[in-house]
Amino acid sequence: MTDALDERLHTLDAWWRAANYVSVGQIYLLDNPLLRRPLEPTDIKPRLLGHWGTTPGLNLVWTHLNRLIRERDVNAIVLAGPGHGGPVAVANAWLEGVYSAVYPQIGQDEEGLRRLFRQFSFPGGVPSHVAPETPGSIHEGGELGYVLSHAYGAVLDNPDLVAVAVIGDGEFETGPLAASWHANKFVDPTHDGAVLPVLHLNGYKIANPTIPARIPREELESLLRGYGHEVLTVEGDDPMDVHRQMLVAMDAAHDRIREIQRLAREEGDVVRRPWPMILMVTPKGWTGPGMVDGQQVEGTWRAHQVPLAGTRDDDGHRKLLEEWMRSYGPEELFDQDGRPVAALLEIAPSGPRRTSANPHANGGVLRNPLDLPHFSGAAVEVAEPGGSIHEPTRVLGTYLAEVMRRNADNFRLFGPDETASNRLDAVYEVTDKVFGAEILESDEHLAHTGRVMEILSEHTCQGWLEGYLLTGRHGLFSCYEAFIHLVDSMLNQHAKWLKTTRTLEWRPPIASLNYLLTSHVWRQDHNGFSHQDPGFIDHVVNKKAEVVRVYLPPDTNTLLSTMQHCLASMHYVNVVVAGKQPSYDWLDAEQADLHCARGLGIWEWASTGGPEPDVVLACAGDVPTLESLAAAALLREHLPDLAVRFVNVVDLMRLQDERAHPHGLSDRAFDAVFTTDKPVVFAYHGYPWLIHRLTYRRTNHDNIHVRGYLEEGTTTTPFDMVMMNDLDRYHLVMDVIDRVPGLGQRAAGVRQFMEDTRRRARAWTREHGEDLPEVQQWRWPGSAAG
Amino acid sequence: MTDALDERLHTLDAWWRAANYVSVGQIYLLDNPLLRRPLEPTDIKPRLLGHWGTTPGLNLVWTHLNRLIRERDVNAIVLAGPGHGGPVAVANAWLEGVYSAVYPQIGQDEEGLRRLFRQFSFPGGVPSHVAPETPGSIHEGGELGYVLSHAYGAVLDNPDLVAVAVIGDGEFETGPLAASWHANKFVDPTHDGAVLPVLHLNGYKIANPTIPARIPREELESLLRGYGHEVLTVEGDDPMDVHRQMLVAMDAAHDRIREIQRLAREEGDVVRRPWPMILMVTPKGWTGPGMVDGQQVEGTWRAHQVPLAGTRDDDGHRKLLEEWMRSYGPEELFDQDGRPVAALLEIAPSGPRRTSANPHANGGVLRNPLDLPHFSGAAVEVAEPGGSIHEPTRVLGTYLAEVMRRNADNFRLFGPDETASNRLDAVYEVTDKVFGAEILESDEHLAHTGRVMEILSEHTCQGWLEGYLLTGRHGLFSCYEAFIHLVDSMLNQHAKWLKTTRTLEWRPPIASLNYLLTSHVWRQDHNGFSHQDPGFIDHVVNKKAEVVRVYLPPDTNTLLSTMQHCLASMHYVNVVVAGKQPSYDWLDAEQADLHCARGLGIWEWASTGGPEPDVVLACAGDVPTLESLAAAALLREHLPDLAVRFVNVVDLMRLQDERAHPHGLSDRAFDAVFTTDKPVVFAYHGYPWLIHRLTYRRTNHDNIHVRGYLEEGTTTTPFDMVMMNDLDRYHLVMDVIDRVPGLGQRAAGVRQFMEDTRRRARAWTREHGEDLPEVQQWRWPGSAAG
Repeated sequence: MTDALDERLHTLDAWWRAANYVSVGQIYLLDNPLLRRPLEPTDIKPRLLGHWGTTPGLNLVWTHLNRLIRERDVNAIVLAGPGHGGPVAVANAWLEGVYSAVYPQIGQDEEGLRRLFRQFSFPGGVPSHVAPETPGSIHEGGELGYVLSHAYGAVLDNPDLVAVAVIGDGEFETGPLAASWHANKFVDPTHDGAVLPVLHLNGYKIANPTIPARIPREELESLLRGYGHEVLTVEGDDPMDVHRQMLVAMDAAHDRIREIQRLAREEGDVVRRPWPMILMVTPKGWTGPGMVDGQQVEGTWRAHQVPLAGTRDDDGHRKLLEEWMRSYGPEELFDQDGRPVAALLEIAPSGPRRTSANPHANGGVLRNPLDLPHFSGAAVEVAEPGGSIHEPTRVLGTYLAEVMRRNADNFRLFGPDETASNRLDAVYEVTDKVFGAEILESDEHLAHTGRVMEILSEHTCQGWLEGYLLTGRHGLFSCYEAFIHLVDSMLNQHAKWLKTTRTLEWRPPIASLNYLLTSHVWRQDHNGFSHQDPGFIDHVVNKKAEVVRVYLPPDTNTLLSTMQHCLASMHYVNVVVAGKQPSYDWLDAEQADLHCARGLGIWEWASTGGPEPDVVLACAGDVPTLESLAAAALLREHLPDLAVRFVNVVDLMRLQDERAHPHGLSDRAFDAVFTTDKPVVFAYHGYPWLIHRLTYRRTNHDNIHVRGYLEEGTTTTPFDMVMMNDLDRYHLVMDVIDRVPGLGQRAAGVRQFMEDTRRRARAWTREHGEDLPEVQQWRWPGSAAG
Repeated sequence: MTDALDERLHTLDAWWRAANYVSVGQIYLLDNPLLRRPLEPTDIKPRLLGHWGTTPGLNLVWTHLNRLIRERDVNAIVLAGPGHGGPVAVANAWLEGVYSAVYPQIGQDEEGLRRLFRQFSFPGGVPSHVAPETPGSIHEGGELGYVLSHAYGAVLDNPDLVAVAVIGDGEFETGPLAASWHANKFVDPTHDGAVLPVLHLNGYKIANPTIPARIPREELESLLRGYGHEVLTVEGDDPMDVHRQMLVAMDAAHDRIREIQRLAREEGDVVRRPWPMILMVTPKGWTGPGMVDGQQVEGTWRAHQVPLAGTRDDDGHRKLLEEWMRSYGPEELFDQDGRPVAALLEIAPSGPRRTSANPHANGGVLRNPLDLPHFSGAAVEVAEPGGSIHEPTRVLGTYLAEVMRRNADNFRLFGPDETASNRLDAVYEVTDKVFGAEILESDEHLAHTGRVMEILSEHTCQGWLEGYLLTGRHGLFSCYEAFIHLVDSMLNQHAKWLKTTRTLEWRPPIASLNYLLTSHVWRQDHNGFSHQDPGFIDHVVNKKAEVVRVYLPPDTNTLLSTMQHCLASMHYVNVVVAGKQPSYDWLDAEQADLHCARGLGIWEWASTGGPEPDVVLACAGDVPTLESLAAAALLREHLPDLAVRFVNVVDLMRLQDERAHPHGLSDRAFDAVFTTDKPVVFAYHGYPWLIHRLTYRRTNHDNIHVRGYLEEGTTTTPFDMVMMNDLDRYHLVMDVIDRVPGLGQRAAGVRQFMEDTRRRARAWTREHGEDLPEVQQWRWPGSAAG
């Protein structure tokens, strides 16, 4: 080893020791942060809630990445996949001076260090996982599996950025992580940055060895090469030896990344090449206590959490802790005031090159609003309600195409092989689907550069989009309604991130996470029961009201208006459910805009009678709106004296009261629409009880009768589906008759006719495989459509 | 090619052609099934909803598996991963004679064939995907990703069984599938059967090429070897050549499987070896129309669905369809009556060796009830309520250990690396964790044989358990409550399967899918906000009431009683939520059994006053029960005259009315417990609105005031968590004071004391990192616990 190299390695080691020291201190200490005196029981936290196992390896990555950033002026962020990596990110941010800048009460001195230690996993403090509160983070380390897809999302359209993604060998076993390795086939080396995966093999998860650590190394390397990577291995337990290997590996990986990018950018050579990755094999709990109470801890799963559990009460454990912390040489690392010594401060990157201060990890500061066209440019002409037919998502595609034209580096569309199926293919006039693997002449709209991302993994799509949003850009995820449940738990984590960051002033808001759920429950004509589930809405509304919005536009123009609104919004989760099948237009652009702005409203043209209704027909969702309008038409024909108020709901959150949700209507406004005492027959897109849950505090709640999806379905016709769930027009009319006081007797014949028609419709469908002609050809009274 | 081989291949080809013919017929034809006359428009279905693309490849697998089964008397089932494989499974079941046996109205003759064709994707008929209605299936092909984990679940403890799992190259991209390759490290070659994965590379998904088809073959093979497989490749587009390759590959794969099993079983050599798999590369839509309207269809994504869309109206398309169907030579394949010719019938396996009749694919017929010990053997002594403390799941572990001792080949425990964390480790006294990869001396409870299955993939755990249940066995999945959301969509599919099979008489019920959700929302002390989500209950209760059950046992003995009940039950999804932390015992074994049998009940010992209460304190969940009891004690102390009825709910479904759920209480019974007019303060484990959704039809609903999880959380103490969500004892007392008419004025001082105590508790926690001593040391009045 040359002297110069030797010195570099010792400097790196000093940083690593400092980071380890500050990490251990967070796990254990309430006080005495610099060990100026022997540790006393009262210096130790009453509840030890940290995890040491993953820490030294993560600190190694931070240490060496900092070296690379400094020496080569690299623009890099780091994402910690392993759980409980919080102390690491916090320790390095503090050493870099960023933590104290963001949180001035935590100074870069002894008192600051004391507070830093104390607050970790302490009530009112910071979590054990890397979290929204952690400077430099776009990735919560709590739920495993998403670190690679987040990292890939971050580097899209960020050609200079390198995202280092540390994958724990536990996380390695999860499905979402396993799928996301293939995200490397969607990186465009010309216009995107690079991800450097670091697979940290420390051998153990909570209570078991990990699979990748217990298969032959050549088998693991075969797997990683199969994922499309060149594997650079760093392995050992001698710190200086590992430092040397890591330094070489980081340089080699960076050289390789830059070479792939140079070939693409300077020579136009975009042939896919294996991207580098680092396989880092170091002991779990490395440099921590070796043997405790006669059992091996370092290098085993016993190092996963707190390797010395009795440090408050057990003098022996406390002594081991003190020895352990002193082994890092704090006296060389911190000065008399508790500041990191100059030699450490000098090797930190500076300004925004510090990973904890990199603006890409705080996307709100980089976010540029979309240049959004007004939707009226894409709107369809609607001369009269029901006078024309369009495929809502197909028209939306033309709007999205214009959005993508105007926001070439700031917006992407994500989907699991469903963009065309969901009829958004107008976007291909503007851009292509990006694909880094082989492209054949026969492929359409597939290119090495493109802004539509399709992989048959909802998890990867969601992770990409989250990473893209968290680094300051905008996007839309279109998905079959039933299968968006695949990302339920990812949605949880993102919604929690949004909720938490609302109160962090230093994190400006990011763009909303927008879902277009189409191919929905009512039109799964050829897929049947397995594809019928409208429950994602229920899942979403359990999240904090401030961050979730649900929209059910009933036709093409309302879909356009809704989507424009969602794309312009910030820091929400917006769920838009809309059909792709040909369906009637009800509102022109102006009416649609007004209706969507109100969120819900009375459709006078579909109502009958004076201002005092006998019954309210309410609906939310495109198919329920169709059935409700058909019911209104039937009532008009068969019971012309009945005063029917027709109400359509686009913004589902309007139904809640204003105390429960920011969009909630006041009780007064709600009562004005839904009355305080008239029966309400409500046709809803999803599970009916959600409407009860949203309205149970309303004056008229006891009179609200909801029809929706009752988990009845199969492969059948559209009208048979609504009949199976009693949401059809005939049943809605029967509901009205049953609920309007005094109507039952008078309308017995009408009710019987409805029942007979239902029976006839069922039989017709079984016989012909199609819906009853009068249903297929139904049109709103007086309209010219057909 | 020898003549003998040649003849074998031609026989196989005949079966394959017959299966293809019967598949195409299902997609297109209403009538004229044997093409006895030229196709007319009226012979064609009005809505063409099938998918041809995947069909010929799947039929190839069935054809050659049948040959293997027959020649070697193999006990095999087949699982079709690709979507829309329904026609294939149906065609082969019909050719094998099983379809007509199960559904006598579909005879094995011309009229039967006509009905078979007509019913496919037709109202009242059968779905496009392999479905519960399909004989021989344990795997719905609708939602992609689970075919491998289902197959591995099926072969556990079935040493003779070979499960052939066909993986589509679209499904290959999903996360759950990617993770499940590693399931091969959990197969015990001595006691388990084998899975033979067949990766079908036909190159395209709905609208895109697939990743595995567009990376270099050596990269794909490297990946598959890295997954632990020996790859046998079958590739081509010349049928006879592919038949020859497939025959060789099937034999080789079977030889290899038997050799691995022989080594283990006869020589005790259980070193993990690469299991064989088949990489089958054939064109999408193979043998279908090549060019249609000037565009290449065969071998492209255009063959994914219906390659000839206009066959009803377009004479040219219809002619192409007829040519296509005739190309299979139906006149050689079916006799005058429409029966498969004798040469075909002869080569089908017979009896239960037919994959469509294999009893392993209809687990209910094989299911043996568990030998269940009564839980009282594991129950804890409870001298008085709150008189002792146990960790409920730790005690449950001792019960489960006995269950596993008695049911050595009929029960398994599944978990994502959490069995020990969830404190069920008593089971290791009876069995080990199975692990086929390297085992070190330092590993504990890890062995090549074992009945606890741990992989850090909730998807794989769920898939394993589903496969195990569907083949007639029993099991339990223990999981952190928050992360069970990862399998939301898998739960959907399984619940739909259960719902559908309830009405299929030929499928007897299977064992229930049992979840133990622990490490729950209220006790995520070191994990914090990312691990706090009780919403899986909400997700589950959206499923059909007949198949879902939710239990919230409040203490150790009620947990035991509940689990015994769940393990004995059939054909349900049972969700049991219970804590693992030390907590008070409230009921002895006898009381617990009675309480659980009732599902909910009044706890007289915790109530005060006479039969007419002033207020009902209700609770569901262990932490809410503790807080409610503490509130009851506070009320007893501070407002001794107040008549408080204490109600605990174990079986959440009791809250619904009897029309909504089979467990629902009658209105009369509900009113008797919850009164018709008294305030009810309900402390609930999860999101509070669920209680409203379950009770909104009840007489007293307007008086029910629910406290629950409000999506507020962080890393903090247990009591701070309940305070953050207003579920704490002090707040419950305040709720009572606010709601009992006339109490407000009289109890103003008590209310103020509660507010002050809350403030003091918050400050104490921030200062000391622990809960208020009086909370930590709280005990039920008069009990001896501490």
